[in-house]
Amino acid sequence: MKNKVRIYDTTLRDGSQAEGITFSVSDKLLMAKKFDDLGISYIEGGWPGSNPKDMHFFDSLRKIRVEKAKIAAFGSTRRAKNKVAKDPNIQALLKARTPVVTIFGKSSVLHVKNVLKISKEENLKLIYDSVNYLKSRHKEVFFDAEHFFDGFELDPEYALESILAAERAGADCIVLCDTNGGTLVSRLCDVISKVKCELKIPFGIHTHNDAGLATANSLSAVELGAVQVQGTINGYGERSGNANLCEIIPALKIKMKIDCVSSVQLGHLKEVSRFVDELANVRHNNKMPYVGDSAFAHKAGVHVNAVQKDKTSYEHMNPALVGNKRRILISDLSGQSNVLLKAIEYGLDVKDKSPEAKKILSDLKELEKKGYEFEAAEASFDILMKKVLKKHKSFFDLEGFTVIDEKRTDSKLISVATVKVSVNGKEERTAAEGDGPVNALDNALRKALIPFYPAIANVRLTDFKVRVLDAKSGTAAKVRVLIESTDGKDMWGTVGVSENIIEASWEALVDSVEYKLFKDENIKNN
Amino acid sequence: MKNKVRIYDTTLRDGSQAEGITFSVSDKLLMAKKFDDLGISYIEGGWPGSNPKDMHFFDSLRKIRVEKAKIAAFGSTRRAKNKVAKDPNIQALLKARTPVVTIFGKSSVLHVKNVLKISKEENLKLIYDSVNYLKSRHKEVFFDAEHFFDGFELDPEYALESILAAERAGADCIVLCDTNGGTLVSRLCDVISKVKCELKIPFGIHTHNDAGLATANSLSAVELGAVQVQGTINGYGERSGNANLCEIIPALKIKMKIDCVSSVQLGHLKEVSRFVDELANVRHNNKMPYVGDSAFAHKAGVHVNAVQKDKTSYEHMNPALVGNKRRILISDLSGQSNVLLKAIEYGLDVKDKSPEAKKILSDLKELEKKGYEFEAAEASFDILMKKVLKKHKSFFDLEGFTVIDEKRTDSKLISVATVKVSVNGKEERTAAEGDGPVNALDNALRKALIPFYPAIANVRLTDFKVRVLDAKSGTAAKVRVLIESTDGKDMWGTVGVSENIIEASWEALVDSVEYKLFKDENIKNN
Repeated sequence: MKNKVRIYDTTLRDGSQAEGITFSVSDKLLMAKKFDDLGISYIEGGWPGSNPKDMHFFDSLRKIRVEKAKIAAFGSTRRAKNKVAKDPNIQALLKARTPVVTIFGKSSVLHVKNVLKISKEENLKLIYDSVNYLKSRHKEVFFDAEHFFDGFELDPEYALESILAAERAGADCIVLCDTNGGTLVSRLCDVISKVKCELKIPFGIHTHNDAGLATANSLSAVELGAVQVQGTINGYGERSGNANLCEIIPALKIKMKIDCVSSVQLGHLKEVSRFVDELANVRHNNKMPYVGDSAFAHKAGVHVNAVQKDKTSYEHMNPALVGNKRRILISDLSGQSNVLLKAIEYGLDVKDKSPEAKKILSDLKELEKKGYEFEAAEASFDILMKKVLKKHKSFFDLEGFTVIDEKRTDSKLISVATVKVSVNGKEERTAAEGDGPVNALDNALRKALIPFYPAIANVRLTDFKVRVLDAKSGTAAKVRVLIESTDGKDMWGTVGVSENIIEASWEALVDSVEYKLFKDENIKNN
Repeated sequence: MKNKVRIYDTTLRDGSQAEGITFSVSDKLLMAKKFDDLGISYIEGGWPGSNPKDMHFFDSLRKIRVEKAKIAAFGSTRRAKNKVAKDPNIQALLKARTPVVTIFGKSSVLHVKNVLKISKEENLKLIYDSVNYLKSRHKEVFFDAEHFFDGFELDPEYALESILAAERAGADCIVLCDTNGGTLVSRLCDVISKVKCELKIPFGIHTHNDAGLATANSLSAVELGAVQVQGTINGYGERSGNANLCEIIPALKIKMKIDCVSSVQLGHLKEVSRFVDELANVRHNNKMPYVGDSAFAHKAGVHVNAVQKDKTSYEHMNPALVGNKRRILISDLSGQSNVLLKAIEYGLDVKDKSPEAKKILSDLKELEKKGYEFEAAEASFDILMKKVLKKHKSFFDLEGFTVIDEKRTDSKLISVATVKVSVNGKEERTAAEGDGPVNALDNALRKALIPFYPAIANVRLTDFKVRVLDAKSGTAAKVRVLIESTDGKDMWGTVGVSENIIEASWEALVDSVEYKLFKDENIKNN
């Protein structure tokens, strides 16, 4: 292992600037605990001088156990009109009672002139006074040099002077910030190479992803000697986000062999990523490197075939290292290898090159040509395989159903479904209302089946997607319906395709119910 | 401008390997046209030897006008057991009748031994034969050196030999591939620096985003002399995706001053990004650098304040260059001017800061909060404005409608709608069947109105889209229905939102009919 790099998480502060993200104090406390377990060195909790919620967080923090991570409070240098000891923002930083304080100051002449509207000299004094004062109060002080790279472009000497002022005042680390996120990697490396020989104290890096380069820039800075990397879980942050720690931590640890978190902690990375998405109520980004659900998903037949022969052939690392796993997808691009692997996963006995394997593959391609898609509907694919293998049976017979949507002048539209099924010759007829025809049908079907299969009562639909396949035929177009169901323990997806949305939904509903009943039978038999 | 870099798009081939993405032949044709307009130099259409759908695409392509872009067909080197002239995959490449052929071959000893299971020498022969044969058939041939960087790590001499074999055989360009997407930028630069002095012909770059470095690696390769960059729109692709052309094109053009697409074409980048997401039915990634809706959205008070003082203070470039725009979250001040411009476009008289302008804006925001979207439904927005301006009237009153979907055992599901409307006190009741409840309702409504408004007979629905807004409530989720209509002369879009898909569709249908009748009245009066 090379020198240690300290991870500095700012999900709770810079991450919360992202569009659509708001964290409550209790969300923040839960995350702080989680980040501590993950081995994060510094957790930036908020900007106590900017809003009361952040101050409340720092107060509450003392009640939970954050074991190893150091908590940082964030704020700006003193205002030009205030003495440092009387500056409300600086005082709020002290009131947060954290071991670490991170203050940002201006490194770019453009910001000094056009935003602060003060002289270059005065800005250097703000930086010096603020750092110096906080050091006198026994804080570990990091100086975030805002717009450092853009500032260096405009006036390299001044950008350098700004960080040297912080160094003279006793800062423990200078954090070079690509605040607007637009700096190219080669440019960033040039600047760091020039600056680092002028600094006597360690430096860190804080980047944004506006050009899609935040991770590359962070890693390059480490290669040039940065000892601290600032970022957020899942890359949350204003505009296109901050540097994504879920990309940076595994790269440092696995690819660059740099000590930052332990291997056991790294194995929880995917879990932490999901946890933060859940708290933020953000849809998980399947494509996210390392921790996304698709990050190790193989679809092309040629890839699947190769992965079977050699795991490393289309994977840049072992997914388990970050708590992720390999997935084989089923689609029209897949070959026999995908089908066999999937059959094994579902506990079905299909031999390579057997007539059954060929039939499954040809049925699959035929259905996909009609518009079916099984990647998000593996339960329907399981049922398809069972049918080919003659292991399928019907748990009920449909005698018929009717859905009526009725509207009178300006009254609310009412949807009612009636369903008639029979199980072993015994008939059941039910009716149910719903928010729309599919919901009504779903309610009526489950109501009809519960007397025969009580476990159906635990099934809930959690997702419902409609895709018009051939939009150009207007309302007569073919539609694909994808349904996701859960029984509280497992989740499964099913699919239906038809020109009639009700028919397509019905198909997906029936598959969902059958999958559940097969699953329960299987558990009972084992 | 420095030397030109050619953009090679593989959205239609490598992009379609992404989880959850399936393109129809007509989707692919629409995209090819769009990419041509964007100034893409090469469009890879598919792998004709791997599936019939791709071959069908190449056949259909000759019917549309792709003006400047060259189309490429993709495939592998010949199989070891086949003579090149008898290899089905190579023959399929010829049958695609494209000016460009891109073939991939193995550059990594690991893949030669463990996946192809042939000798190192034999693999070099496969490469040489395949390239040589395709050159003899007058193709422009690109050689994709698969796993080049990983292969170089294992056996640098062999990796180099593999591309020199392609060079000797007459390849026009060697494309160095980071197939597993795990190569660090510094490592990639090292390898390219070593390799490029050995090559006499130009080289290109093809990267994947498994480590979040695809953009950085592509741009670094260009800095080292790559003349071709392969990638996909929105970064679609297997696992974590391919290099994202929506990040690469603006970086080349704006930040590196390299000629690739024109400034006018660059201004359409956001539009193309959305277009491809729409076709793929993929949720737009708000955070996407350059083209995402949040890419220039400011939330933090300090940022908003600074941006008002100086636009460049928290933006790395002018969003308009890629067809994007600045957004100020919470207090969006740009709203009113949009409304005014739109009103003028629709021939309505709305004064700046008038109560009407404010009411339209507040109604708009209220509806958008409920899930309405007017970008693709301007006819509904026109009707909304007419209502506020008291220029709206009803052309008919709905007395009521009923839709019945009925299914008996295995028979086809039948959907029938009855509609009762009155016009100037005269009632009309009709019934009609349809391919699904919405189609039936559409048929019945128009049938009822034709006696009063014969022009309605010419109206046809050309597009119908359903988006589930709050998927987590299952079949009870809110849906947005977008409808596109035409009367043979004009096209217009309308929208409806409800928890009941029938109600949402009804709203959009009524707006569509009203818009048509207003339009005709307007023509008559002028």
